[in-house]
Amino acid sequence: MADPATAFQEQVEEAFLASQATVDLNTFFVITSAIFVLIMQAGFCMLTAGSVRARNARGIILKNLMDACVAAIMYFLTGWGVAGLLVGDANSFIGTSQYTLNGLDASALYNWFFQYAFAAAACTIVSGALAERATFVAYLLYSVYIIGFVYPVVTHWIWSPSGWASAFRSELADGTYKSLLFGSGAIDFAGSGAVHMVGGVAACAGAALLGPRLGRYDANGKPIPIPGHNVALAVLGTFLLWVGWYGFNPGSALGIVNGFSTTVARVCVTTTLAGASGGLMTLFTHVLIQYKVSGNVTWDVMVAANGALAGLVSVTAPCATITPYAAIIIGIIGAWVYLGGSYLNSHILRIDDPVDAIAVHGWAGMWGVLAAGLFSTEAYVAEVYGTVPGTEDGVRKYGGFYGGGGSLFAAQIVYMLSVVAWVGGMMGIFFAILKFAGILRVTPEVEAAGCDASHYGGSAYHGVGGEAGIVMPTAKAMGKGDASSTDGEELEKLRAEVAELSVKVHAMTATV
Amino acid sequence: MADPATAFQEQVEEAFLASQATVDLNTFFVITSAIFVLIMQAGFCMLTAGSVRARNARGIILKNLMDACVAAIMYFLTGWGVAGLLVGDANSFIGTSQYTLNGLDASALYNWFFQYAFAAAACTIVSGALAERATFVAYLLYSVYIIGFVYPVVTHWIWSPSGWASAFRSELADGTYKSLLFGSGAIDFAGSGAVHMVGGVAACAGAALLGPRLGRYDANGKPIPIPGHNVALAVLGTFLLWVGWYGFNPGSALGIVNGFSTTVARVCVTTTLAGASGGLMTLFTHVLIQYKVSGNVTWDVMVAANGALAGLVSVTAPCATITPYAAIIIGIIGAWVYLGGSYLNSHILRIDDPVDAIAVHGWAGMWGVLAAGLFSTEAYVAEVYGTVPGTEDGVRKYGGFYGGGGSLFAAQIVYMLSVVAWVGGMMGIFFAILKFAGILRVTPEVEAAGCDASHYGGSAYHGVGGEAGIVMPTAKAMGKGDASSTDGEELEKLRAEVAELSVKVHAMTATV
Amino acid sequence: MADPATAFQEQVEEAFLASQATVDLNTFFVITSAIFVLIMQAGFCMLTAGSVRARNARGIILKNLMDACVAAIMYFLTGWGVAGLLVGDANSFIGTSQYTLNGLDASALYNWFFQYAFAAAACTIVSGALAERATFVAYLLYSVYIIGFVYPVVTHWIWSPSGWASAFRSELADGTYKSLLFGSGAIDFAGSGAVHMVGGVAACAGAALLGPRLGRYDANGKPIPIPGHNVALAVLGTFLLWVGWYGFNPGSALGIVNGFSTTVARVCVTTTLAGASGGLMTLFTHVLIQYKVSGNVTWDVMVAANGALAGLVSVTAPCATITPYAAIIIGIIGAWVYLGGSYLNSHILRIDDPVDAIAVHGWAGMWGVLAAGLFSTEAYVAEVYGTVPGTEDGVRKYGGFYGGGGSLFAAQIVYMLSVVAWVGGMMGIFFAILKFAGILRVTPEVEAAGCDASHYGGSAYHGVGGEAGIVMPTAKAMGKGDASSTDGEELEKLRAEVAELSVKVHAMTATV
Repeated sequence: MADPATAFQEQVEEAFLASQATVDLNTFFVITSAIFVLIMQAGFCMLTAGSVRARNARGIILKNLMDACVAAIMYFLTGWGVAGLLVGDANSFIGTSQYTLNGLDASALYNWFFQYAFAAAACTIVSGALAERATFVAYLLYSVYIIGFVYPVVTHWIWSPSGWASAFRSELADGTYKSLLFGSGAIDFAGSGAVHMVGGVAACAGAALLGPRLGRYDANGKPIPIPGHNVALAVLGTFLLWVGWYGFNPGSALGIVNGFSTTVARVCVTTTLAGASGGLMTLFTHVLIQYKVSGNVTWDVMVAANGALAGLVSVTAPCATITPYAAIIIGIIGAWVYLGGSYLNSHILRIDDPVDAIAVHGWAGMWGVLAAGLFSTEAYVAEVYGTVPGTEDGVRKYGGFYGGGGSLFAAQIVYMLSVVAWVGGMMGIFFAILKFAGILRVTPEVEAAGCDASHYGGSAYHGVGGEAGIVMPTAKAMGKGDASSTDGEELEKLRAEVAELSVKVHAMTATV
Repeated sequence: MADPATAFQEQVEEAFLASQATVDLNTFFVITSAIFVLIMQAGFCMLTAGSVRARNARGIILKNLMDACVAAIMYFLTGWGVAGLLVGDANSFIGTSQYTLNGLDASALYNWFFQYAFAAAACTIVSGALAERATFVAYLLYSVYIIGFVYPVVTHWIWSPSGWASAFRSELADGTYKSLLFGSGAIDFAGSGAVHMVGGVAACAGAALLGPRLGRYDANGKPIPIPGHNVALAVLGTFLLWVGWYGFNPGSALGIVNGFSTTVARVCVTTTLAGASGGLMTLFTHVLIQYKVSGNVTWDVMVAANGALAGLVSVTAPCATITPYAAIIIGIIGAWVYLGGSYLNSHILRIDDPVDAIAVHGWAGMWGVLAAGLFSTEAYVAEVYGTVPGTEDGVRKYGGFYGGGGSLFAAQIVYMLSVVAWVGGMMGIFFAILKFAGILRVTPEVEAAGCDASHYGGSAYHGVGGEAGIVMPTAKAMGKGDASSTDGEELEKLRAEVAELSVKVHAMTATV
Repeated sequence: MADPATAFQEQVEEAFLASQATVDLNTFFVITSAIFVLIMQAGFCMLTAGSVRARNARGIILKNLMDACVAAIMYFLTGWGVAGLLVGDANSFIGTSQYTLNGLDASALYNWFFQYAFAAAACTIVSGALAERATFVAYLLYSVYIIGFVYPVVTHWIWSPSGWASAFRSELADGTYKSLLFGSGAIDFAGSGAVHMVGGVAACAGAALLGPRLGRYDANGKPIPIPGHNVALAVLGTFLLWVGWYGFNPGSALGIVNGFSTTVARVCVTTTLAGASGGLMTLFTHVLIQYKVSGNVTWDVMVAANGALAGLVSVTAPCATITPYAAIIIGIIGAWVYLGGSYLNSHILRIDDPVDAIAVHGWAGMWGVLAAGLFSTEAYVAEVYGTVPGTEDGVRKYGGFYGGGGSLFAAQIVYMLSVVAWVGGMMGIFFAILKFAGILRVTPEVEAAGCDASHYGGSAYHGVGGEAGIVMPTAKAMGKGDASSTDGEELEKLRAEVAELSVKVHAMTATV
């Protein structure tokens, strides 16, 4: 017989868990996580802006702002309904209720906010790969389509208790439970597949159908590097993404009270270690390769930054069910997957991706999904996913490396291939339609001058370069220019003068 | 008779709400919200810096940093006392206790921190409208005055249980309650009026008395656009503001435990939808107008960014008491109010506002206050504001569109006009005094060269433009310049040489 | 006899504090604080990047990203073990267990994440002082060493219940308690000593052994200012650091439930006031000094920004145990310590510190440690640190200004000097070894061109300066250049043409 003190303790804890306070505190946790995820919008914006040429900065910055807005509207109108994340007895393929939040209980509304933040991330991943040549209309339509339909379908598969690939199940009306894929269901804790692969595969379809930027490949198909215009912005963006990941991964516990804090803490640790090992291994691998190729030692922060992101993407599926050591290994392999995938895209497949989003999110996302099938431990899977629904103590499948057999890994593979097929197919058809309609890519003239000049209101920059506030007496004395003209305009005027002079001098040298 | 289990549940919940833990957790929620609000300081700084010319960047950046500091000191010395937000039996007009936090209980100290963050936001809204021509001393004095007195008075009216416009009341010593304005009190959940209108109206008074920048209007009064120098910074700032709004609006519930989470979740949803619809509608409306005027299709991120902010400002008053659909509508109308107000300022009233703060915060803030009187639903008003104090079940007034009658709307109008009159009057007199004393605006010479050169330690930028680290052999071979000179300096040298050559060649062509 | 209602209340509160929910909520609080601290990584990156020359931006940005990664790996491998923060019966000098988190209970894992964020901050403080001339390998090795050993040893002293300087003690196996230094232990709530002094002293050792940058001192030893290239980035970084400080200081309560919220709220207030008074006093003192020296009025945001940071550093040790007024005073004195320390470094000691990290973190950190010994009140020390362990009601020592005697102040001094000796010694020897091995500093040629060109993959910037997207017809018509060349390249071409023309014209004027 339990002693009275222990019994009282248990009763109080039970009452607390059944109280409004528990709802309040879980809401607080999920909403705080969502706000951190939304910092990633600023992060992606700065990363992509810094990674493209200055003449296209304004356009990519608009695309990032616009998709945060479109994602909100579309995830309200259809996205949440398609995802059906809180609905246990829906279709295995797609959600069938709660469109426009109809029927969503007020106490569960915070879930929409958190999922909106995820949707906005999935959408914005694509922007960089299409940068510098896609039309704004194409990007607008793509955002509507991916948030309104393509992305939430995948989340339904993997996170809804109805979804065919999901590890979650709810009791059905007749008291039974839907079966799990391979008796396991797939594990994708925070979305290496559902968010990053979706973004990466869509990016790949778009970039492939767009074709490479003018000047990206020479006549022999050799890639010519096109450096971004501002590494400071790009790495600021990387840091903001890293911070946001601490809402993205831990927040996917969807609650903090009732012991979720153990999972949440583990996720913070594994997320950190994978990002760190990914960044360092990418940096070192790159410097070794460069040294072999050119004899130079080049420590490249853009490569390291993308490597850290690849590590974070790789751990996003397995983060809750692995050990810290496994996180380090997953980040290391994620670094190599990123470097290999990047090379494959740029040199073999000749798919031009201005920000390497396909490699960072697509390739590393695939690795993340597979890694969850290899490194998830028995104890952690049981902790996070509980017993198999509909059984008394149905033991969960777990990672291959720990002797968990092949069921989980098989589920991961099927899930991963389904994402590639679904997103590749849906977005491929979509981008092909836009291409056929002639509204996918800007004209070569517009592209050569930089899209900002033609479509986005001009340059993102005015009057930078040179000292601000310098009075330019010589120009004024020459009767040309004025204090408010930019250096670029001065350069043009000067060039015109030199051309004039050159003509005169050549005329004189010819006669003399 | 309630069964024992239910009775026990209720007792435990009651005990929890009366416990220190509830204070702890509400403190945690409000402080976390305050930290997100303080991210808006970085946001406003980047938005205003990117929106002005490079030659004035350093000055506006200093003003933003300085007002975060001044707001802290002033809100400690007098601001909190004037606001009297926790005092129910004070004056209806102004707070009369707790100056320098004297008498503020340690368990309520977190409120000062949250309100400080709001005060800093109200103060910094003004900086952009005065940019490029106001003196630093004017800005310093203005910040002291608005935080120390003008702003907290308005918060007292609307948020203190003593305030004449407030919807909140506390029991007085004699057991009675002060009456509510029109039996309703005004609704301004997070400050469309108290923060954004205060900032916007003060900005208007300042910008009007300052007069427009040199070169802003031609001889016929037609406005000449003066583009900002860095759109990447401006939109980074916009994203940071948007993130901070999720501390600003939901945090205004001032607690999370005891069911506040339902309100908090709704606020996250409505805030998101209004910002999204504001940004998109502004973008589309602007592209349509531009197309009609010029035949060009221009997708302008600066307009869209300000539109998203206008949507967020518009929803700040009604966010807790409206449906998601209403939030979308409020954002759409906020977009049009912003565009109209911006045009009115720049083309009709000829008030020069380098960052459009008057339109985004003033005009859209007014719309937000009115919108709360139209779209607040009966159920949500009851949930957030409870019954009318001093009555058994006194039903709250609610929004006109839902048949709530005109009382709430009337209260909103009176509140709104009072803010305009109070802030316009107080700040108008203040700026007029500074103008009369000759310390409001810099001299034309200082302004033409850019204020940074004269007063702020020089340019914000050194040596950007051109490739960093490039050895410039031709310049060295010519015996002019060196590797460390900037492109701007090189340009000057080159211009001087070309001028010399031009003179020589012209002399020769004249003789030849 | 307590009445039944009160007894029930107490029992419920006791049960709650013993429940999993309390662990969950404290975890949530500490993890949220840690995420805010990690925002400081973005902050330091932007601050240091903006404070150096453009030709070295890429390198310093990489160093910041890399040390966030190295700190994670090293703090996992050895750092946490060395720190021994949760171990009460270890060595007084260094931790002896929980290496690689072995033996760290899952419910306490969140502490590693929070402490990792602190370690990353300590490491990155140093980067700016070594900028523009240290090799990447030196920085890599330094990061491994300081996170893996030097920094966590200090945290062991001051924060581990085993540490000789700590104010914390745990019951030992034999039921006794280790004694406290001077019967007091030293107070360093969030790390003016443990984090900021460690970073500042290491920065000093490194900068001194590196020697000043080329061109920093003229032949007479007079310092030549080398302005940073981007004040907007530097102040963005400052704001992000300020925001992160609200995770850094309040999070050091390491919990929220059970009354910690009172401490947390006070810390938010004191942190704010010290940063504000630090920023303002630095600004005003500097403008006065400049006016006396040069007759100009210069409001310098870089000085004000560093002053705000110095205020924040100064309050980091005493923030939990002081009044708001004391916070303002501490910030004011911190401003003067910063200005004095900066002058001492640059003009007297001739230690070149590109970002003034030694003054902001080292000098102001020392003041912070001393300030805790002067201004800590009796009531607050009792609230935060409890009674002296091992005694019934052993009264804590407190601040000298309040009549607390000299014990606490003496403990602060001994602690402070120990940090200087330990870090100065360990890092001094380390940097000397690197210098002797010839791998501390880059060659003068590499330094003159900017390290980015040689070692970091080229410039951080491409094609900024001038209008993006301008079609340059004259260049094309001249058959030179193309739309994709940068303004820097155009300038070069133009210079070459002018040189040619100049030769021709000079030849003609010579003959004519």
